[in-house]
Amino acid sequence: MNKRTDLALENVEMQPKTRTDGVRSLSQTQSGVRISAVTIYNEAGSAALGKPQGTYVTLELPDRLETAKTRAAAQTLLAQRLQRMLPARGTVLVVGLGNENITPDALGPKCVSLLFATRHITGELAKQAGFENLRAVAAIAPGVLGQTGMETAEIIESLVQRVKPQAVLVIDALASCRLTRLGTTIQLTDTGIAPGSGVGNRRVELSARTLGVPVVAIGVPTVVDATTLALDVLQANGVDQPQAPPLAQSNERLMMVTPKEVDLMMDRAAEVIAMGINRALQPDLSDEELRSIVK
Amino acid sequence: MNKRTDLALENVEMQPKTRTDGVRSLSQTQSGVRISAVTIYNEAGSAALGKPQGTYVTLELPDRLETAKTRAAAQTLLAQRLQRMLPARGTVLVVGLGNENITPDALGPKCVSLLFATRHITGELAKQAGFENLRAVAAIAPGVLGQTGMETAEIIESLVQRVKPQAVLVIDALASCRLTRLGTTIQLTDTGIAPGSGVGNRRVELSARTLGVPVVAIGVPTVVDATTLALDVLQANGVDQPQAPPLAQSNERLMMVTPKEVDLMMDRAAEVIAMGINRALQPDLSDEELRSIVK
Amino acid sequence: MNKRTDLALENVEMQPKTRTDGVRSLSQTQSGVRISAVTIYNEAGSAALGKPQGTYVTLELPDRLETAKTRAAAQTLLAQRLQRMLPARGTVLVVGLGNENITPDALGPKCVSLLFATRHITGELAKQAGFENLRAVAAIAPGVLGQTGMETAEIIESLVQRVKPQAVLVIDALASCRLTRLGTTIQLTDTGIAPGSGVGNRRVELSARTLGVPVVAIGVPTVVDATTLALDVLQANGVDQPQAPPLAQSNERLMMVTPKEVDLMMDRAAEVIAMGINRALQPDLSDEELRSIVK
Amino acid sequence: MNKRTDLALENVEMQPKTRTDGVRSLSQTQSGVRISAVTIYNEAGSAALGKPQGTYVTLELPDRLETAKTRAAAQTLLAQRLQRMLPARGTVLVVGLGNENITPDALGPKCVSLLFATRHITGELAKQAGFENLRAVAAIAPGVLGQTGMETAEIIESLVQRVKPQAVLVIDALASCRLTRLGTTIQLTDTGIAPGSGVGNRRVELSARTLGVPVVAIGVPTVVDATTLALDVLQANGVDQPQAPPLAQSNERLMMVTPKEVDLMMDRAAEVIAMGINRALQPDLSDEELRSIVK
Repeated sequence: MNKRTDLALENVEMQPKTRTDGVRSLSQTQSGVRISAVTIYNEAGSAALGKPQGTYVTLELPDRLETAKTRAAAQTLLAQRLQRMLPARGTVLVVGLGNENITPDALGPKCVSLLFATRHITGELAKQAGFENLRAVAAIAPGVLGQTGMETAEIIESLVQRVKPQAVLVIDALASCRLTRLGTTIQLTDTGIAPGSGVGNRRVELSARTLGVPVVAIGVPTVVDATTLALDVLQANGVDQPQAPPLAQSNERLMMVTPKEVDLMMDRAAEVIAMGINRALQPDLSDEELRSIVK
Repeated sequence: MNKRTDLALENVEMQPKTRTDGVRSLSQTQSGVRISAVTIYNEAGSAALGKPQGTYVTLELPDRLETAKTRAAAQTLLAQRLQRMLPARGTVLVVGLGNENITPDALGPKCVSLLFATRHITGELAKQAGFENLRAVAAIAPGVLGQTGMETAEIIESLVQRVKPQAVLVIDALASCRLTRLGTTIQLTDTGIAPGSGVGNRRVELSARTLGVPVVAIGVPTVVDATTLALDVLQANGVDQPQAPPLAQSNERLMMVTPKEVDLMMDRAAEVIAMGINRALQPDLSDEELRSIVK
Repeated sequence: MNKRTDLALENVEMQPKTRTDGVRSLSQTQSGVRISAVTIYNEAGSAALGKPQGTYVTLELPDRLETAKTRAAAQTLLAQRLQRMLPARGTVLVVGLGNENITPDALGPKCVSLLFATRHITGELAKQAGFENLRAVAAIAPGVLGQTGMETAEIIESLVQRVKPQAVLVIDALASCRLTRLGTTIQLTDTGIAPGSGVGNRRVELSARTLGVPVVAIGVPTVVDATTLALDVLQANGVDQPQAPPLAQSNERLMMVTPKEVDLMMDRAAEVIAMGINRALQPDLSDEELRSIVK
Repeated sequence: MNKRTDLALENVEMQPKTRTDGVRSLSQTQSGVRISAVTIYNEAGSAALGKPQGTYVTLELPDRLETAKTRAAAQTLLAQRLQRMLPARGTVLVVGLGNENITPDALGPKCVSLLFATRHITGELAKQAGFENLRAVAAIAPGVLGQTGMETAEIIESLVQRVKPQAVLVIDALASCRLTRLGTTIQLTDTGIAPGSGVGNRRVELSARTLGVPVVAIGVPTVVDATTLALDVLQANGVDQPQAPPLAQSNERLMMVTPKEVDLMMDRAAEVIAMGINRALQPDLSDEELRSIVK
């Protein structure tokens, strides 16, 4: 049965076999956070998981960013992993996907509003502000197709041609199979964005193939589709279900849900992601400096 | 198994017998809207459904208020039914329950912000404004216990003593068993609010017994708990489940979910409820007049 | 003395002579709205008014869009004038300038959120939706330099190269000399946006010269600088001031102010501008259809 | 000439004589903040300043709460002064006046949303949460007359009868004479709220006389009326104006303005006021604890 997920980790979990050809999966725990790295290294692995080749790092947090401790750990680990995936220097264009008017889809726009965009802070301006070693960061939340009439790919491709960044970093809200993963998981990948992913099931592909520069994507699952949720909850409660019948394509099948506390969940996720990015891109600035700049 | 619902209609549906002692249930369809009236008329009925005696009218809409046609029908039917339940004249105090910062819980505050509060428009002020037959309406969204440190009942009881309304009308977001009912159902009851109901599982009772005047409650389901949802989706998809084991009290059991499009759902529900109330309380004003006043 | 204004009409009013070489100014009144057309047709006129050559149409409304009558008149007149300035057919790219987090600067982003973006509604999608004669409209609110690290001109130039529109339509909040003009005036010009204009004193030029296609700009004044306001109020109250001393560059000199009711003013202005544009670009759709689409 | 102000300090400044009978005025500077205490101690002083007898403490900050240093100083000084004015123990009812939909009037509601309401955290709940010495705090933002149809005084009087606090603390946005004072000044007074004050020119009186318990009011000026501003700016720029003619009652006379950056100004003022109150009322909790609770 087809469970909708944007997390490579969940694709691995759904595999009947413990080992899949072309897929390597490792995990460790650090500061209470389980860090998994799934690497898809050939076409067989890509076909088995239904995802492009590359590395998918997942941070599974002990709570939904409710404690200061979890937020600090998430931010630090995200910054470290991000630095490993991005080129060491050069302009980074950050793209926040999603519709700011749909709360569980607004991760990208919310993050962008908390980023320290620096590309214009050069020369005299930088000197006066006491910023002389800033890495150049550009950032945009372009909106979604229904708002702009333009495919996000069109917008980003034309900006890449103009801004000529060393790398693109895309932020998007994701779908997961498991309710417990919403707001508690961060996925980081060097494969960019594949068509059909994200809360809005976006049509866009944003990858090194389409943009010509490395594309790193960061996502947090914020929705789960109702049928996937149903199966997951039942299993978690020990309800056996040996021969699953083909599920009807009911409306509920297509309905995506999000936790009641979606507003708080989004605010916390956006802050941690944005501060993790700020820290990764401006390692010379302290957390406090970054916080006071972007507020 | 215990399914969480604030809709009397769903309590009836969950009964194993087609007829429950002390409960009368009728339904009809008008303008595409199924209108059900459940009357609980003795203690046996009250015990069977776990709800106070009184009448519960439910409007089941053909869509989630997406079409202008559905919105118009809902507004008209709500205004009619409300007029039947409220006393014909005298001050009405409208209370919007819920936390405005939690989107699926914000029905009450959102409605109150769209109401035409008129109690202060008297004498010269009324004459100048051309309003001489306004019914007195007071309105408040008091916030929730965690925000105010005061039980909502304390706040409302003291206001009732001061304002001395003829009736109190309470608006609250509800829990339902079925995902398809979220944002598509309106419940109207002359029993007021029972403890433990609402999205926030509020402890408050607001009823004729506690307030000394008739209390009418209007609600729209906006959340469903994950386990209830799971069972509902599985059943809708033909998954048989003969002997349900006792569900574990997992975290998911307690997690309430709401549709991804919660923002739009809330805006539409709030507008229809508020305009239905405005129309019921100011029958001399046209819809257009009301709309231009409250905007 | 230098009064800060983005309205050509006010530049004309400030001229000591009743006639300025190279400037033609006409006005008429229609539906209670005073419509002025200032045409700058040579370099002398351009130098005298400090504005590029072209036509500046100003609608002065009888109130701050408080009445339904004024809103309807403004919308109709704006749509008519806009149709005259824009090419008769072909894709239009609408750009909403400004910072959505600064209320008096948020005209552009607010308008864009109410526009009917249609460029992607083609082929089967258009047929199914019953839209077969839509004019292609793309829309974006790119944010400001401090948010994106990219000059707005960079973003728009690269989108123009990609989308290849027949015309660009820019919306921006403006500065005026007179408090009474805030929220009551709409300026429409075929000269685009000049550097140093707008609430944010943006550095961007967006014109036929820089973009290679006709650029029409729509603006509403929402701020006035404190010194300009001071002189204006004093004069309106009959305080004579024959030899104005050179004003000190105090902080107040640089402080821009907006009316207390700025939220309502912005909402109303954005709705009228957006609906005027929607109507001008989709003349086959009724106002009601447009309203239900963009809501 | 009549300048509109809610600051006792400005009433003093406007007095032609350096000393007014019945008024004592002292000032000192601490951490870069000028602290003035105006005491009106008899009827002559009250008549001269047009304000009730009592003490008015004003904090004049070196900037508009832009720097972390100023925010910290303001918070500390506010907490200290507040502790002196409030009774040492007993329940405090905090009331946030104003309309949350009008940005410069939303100080009260914004502050209330950042307060730590504790009155319900008692017994087992308090023990479990590790809070055993909390001072009881209740808080409400009741909305304005046009929203509720109830005078704020009616609402607060009935809540005081019910909650029986030891003191009431009222927060409101104020009018000032001087643009430079907006967002840079905090006034604290033991006289409560006088009719006709506040951004909304509220009709309410909230004082020991009407409520029967001490009433402390905290306010920040956020608006200035245009004529007052005009005179102030002209004087600051050295424009002499020996015989001011009677100002016409033009519309501008009545128009209140606020800085362009009103959103940021309000957010910062609300945070400082709320944290100052939290600290004054819960001296056993650290700033960090308070911050993590109310966020």
